[in-house]
Amino acid sequence: MALVVKKFGGTSVGDLKRIRHVAQLVRAHKERTGDDVVVVVSAMSGETNKLVELAHDCVKKPAPREMDVLLATGEQVTIALLSMALIEQGTPARSVLASQARIATDGRHTEAHIEKIDEEAFRPLLSEGITPVVAGFQGIDPSGDVTTLGRGGSDVSAVAIAAALNAKQCYIYTDVEGVYSADPRICKEAFRLPKICHEEMLEMASLGAKVLHPRSVYFAMRYQVPLTVLSTFEPGEGTQIVKEEELVEKPVVTGVTYRMDEAKVTVNGLRGGIGSLNKLFSVLSGGGLFVDMITQTGTFEDQTNVSFTVPDNESSQALEIVQEALSEIGADGASLDRNIAKVSVVGIGMRYHTGVAAKMFEVLAQEGIDVQMISTSEIKISVVIPRKYCEMAVRTLHDGFVEYKPEISEEQI
Amino acid sequence: MALVVKKFGGTSVGDLKRIRHVAQLVRAHKERTGDDVVVVVSAMSGETNKLVELAHDCVKKPAPREMDVLLATGEQVTIALLSMALIEQGTPARSVLASQARIATDGRHTEAHIEKIDEEAFRPLLSEGITPVVAGFQGIDPSGDVTTLGRGGSDVSAVAIAAALNAKQCYIYTDVEGVYSADPRICKEAFRLPKICHEEMLEMASLGAKVLHPRSVYFAMRYQVPLTVLSTFEPGEGTQIVKEEELVEKPVVTGVTYRMDEAKVTVNGLRGGIGSLNKLFSVLSGGGLFVDMITQTGTFEDQTNVSFTVPDNESSQALEIVQEALSEIGADGASLDRNIAKVSVVGIGMRYHTGVAAKMFEVLAQEGIDVQMISTSEIKISVVIPRKYCEMAVRTLHDGFVEYKPEISEEQI
Repeated sequence: MALVVKKFGGTSVGDLKRIRHVAQLVRAHKERTGDDVVVVVSAMSGETNKLVELAHDCVKKPAPREMDVLLATGEQVTIALLSMALIEQGTPARSVLASQARIATDGRHTEAHIEKIDEEAFRPLLSEGITPVVAGFQGIDPSGDVTTLGRGGSDVSAVAIAAALNAKQCYIYTDVEGVYSADPRICKEAFRLPKICHEEMLEMASLGAKVLHPRSVYFAMRYQVPLTVLSTFEPGEGTQIVKEEELVEKPVVTGVTYRMDEAKVTVNGLRGGIGSLNKLFSVLSGGGLFVDMITQTGTFEDQTNVSFTVPDNESSQALEIVQEALSEIGADGASLDRNIAKVSVVGIGMRYHTGVAAKMFEVLAQEGIDVQMISTSEIKISVVIPRKYCEMAVRTLHDGFVEYKPEISEEQI
Repeated sequence: MALVVKKFGGTSVGDLKRIRHVAQLVRAHKERTGDDVVVVVSAMSGETNKLVELAHDCVKKPAPREMDVLLATGEQVTIALLSMALIEQGTPARSVLASQARIATDGRHTEAHIEKIDEEAFRPLLSEGITPVVAGFQGIDPSGDVTTLGRGGSDVSAVAIAAALNAKQCYIYTDVEGVYSADPRICKEAFRLPKICHEEMLEMASLGAKVLHPRSVYFAMRYQVPLTVLSTFEPGEGTQIVKEEELVEKPVVTGVTYRMDEAKVTVNGLRGGIGSLNKLFSVLSGGGLFVDMITQTGTFEDQTNVSFTVPDNESSQALEIVQEALSEIGADGASLDRNIAKVSVVGIGMRYHTGVAAKMFEVLAQEGIDVQMISTSEIKISVVIPRKYCEMAVRTLHDGFVEYKPEISEEQI
């Protein structure tokens, strides 16, 4: 008999009506397929934030170990309620805490990493025909303390459990219908991608598609877990995240993504070549800053300008750090531009095609959009442009690159 | 080094300010005495009811196992917040879940009984100078499932932990200053009792003094745990609950209590003697009803009237059950009187004095209060009277029986 894992996020279990709806989805799947189902859930939407706030209202700096004990109550409430709902609907179910599921993590409180899941924690329940309802987002460290997994943690829990149980499929239920070729709110032509490979999903998640957290995609790729993202509220097949080999078509560009949460710092008149660059980035990493893109421009007589992007909410701090260290670094000045956007095209087919960057510049230039920075990997090209052009650039690039493939349904494959 | 257990109820940890106040109380005790302290807490006031409501809003009949998983989150929130507050105030502390404290219970969900507590769960923390902050009200059954202990459960947790650790003292912090000789809201002359013995406390708790749940008093008596009830909000020594031998004075009447949550059912014209009585109470217990006092009156020509008291909220049901079974029982009719009160005098000294009942009737008769039913034990006499006289009866009996003893402070003993 096959086994699937179904994970429901905070919005999917956001109120009691939705919890009962999720119970119906689980029951319907079991009745239709005869599959065993392991359910993984998040806290009801808003609850985790409420608990974080409570801790910060109580003390200035909450102890991370205790923060985890506090946060873990969020999912504990959901597993109890969903189990009640399943039982009332006639589906034998049992809530399973992370300690009962023996989800072993390291001891990094509030951002622990899963190390091992004991499938034997689930088998006895499944063999009795009981549906385990597991608290996502949490685990137990070697000393038996509660840990939580950080942002996107419940997705990671689900994929890890699916890997441990060798599940046929891990379904991630959310409030969108799948992964789109671009954000449908700004690009009317965007369409749901029936399939996408792990590498593309990883790039798209990092570059702004918020459907899945990159960590869960890594996990799925590493342990070869077949993953599907789909909607709790709308029927549909969602998006399957598969191995590259399983993609029949490999479009050059699969999707267009954007982020508007970065800012650009430019350092002018940098002297001293590599040594100065080294100093610049040492100073920044010393300040705990995460630098994303870097470009060097206008080198002239041993002087150069360097631009880099940082998260927007840390950009003023980055500018300050650089300005205070100007003489140490050996540079004339520094400036900040917060009105930027990063737009990216992603596609596994880029591995086999050249000229994408050239075409990208051409398409953007036709619309009069100035490219300020560029960064590439094997399967993506990102450009920094003025923020005001962001939506237009996404639409233009989608028009220019992404080809609509009529969906191939499961049956036809 | 001595060890004490301090338990704080829901009102004591009712908001974040109070949680920080509790942390200060714990720290102050440690600094003043050098004692090790184990803290036990309830859920913040109102939280448990909120969770119960949530479950009943979600499904018609919540599964008890899942109810316990849900309810357990209440105390989990408090132990995390209180630990944070202690740590921030400079007192090393660590929250301890029931599973970590290895509080073993039977499997009766929502009303489990503690079977064993492993003191070794606490020793390593204490030897490191860390204050354990334990979730009251909950335990773990033999299959590793979360259980809860029912009403008054956190008091039971505290006393059981104190017994396991052989604590010098178990302090139950609450919102009153101790056990009073009568309810001070209706009797101005009522005073805080500095000491009271377990048997008296048990009777008083069962008879309406809501300071401590009878189960925790049983536990304290059985395992000889020195218990003190005192206020979280007002300084004071509270009430010590001690062994009878430790009471220097043994007043005939220590306290006067009352309950107004019972009702009286009277069955008229009962024929057939013992056989009929048997049938009557079989029918009632078959209906799951708990009968408290029973009296038989007006026996005449093989006919008798029987009155009994039941909880007020089950009294209509009791009346119905009896009325439907009248012919089976062999009785003429049944009636319900919900306007009653039960007033009791309690005192260990009754063991050594006679004539208390006579004096009680005399005192009440002087005020024109009619006694409808009576029930006695070795150390208490309870009477049922019309509800409207309840407060007056309490004051009158307090005046007539309870003698004020000036408090003897700890130092003088």
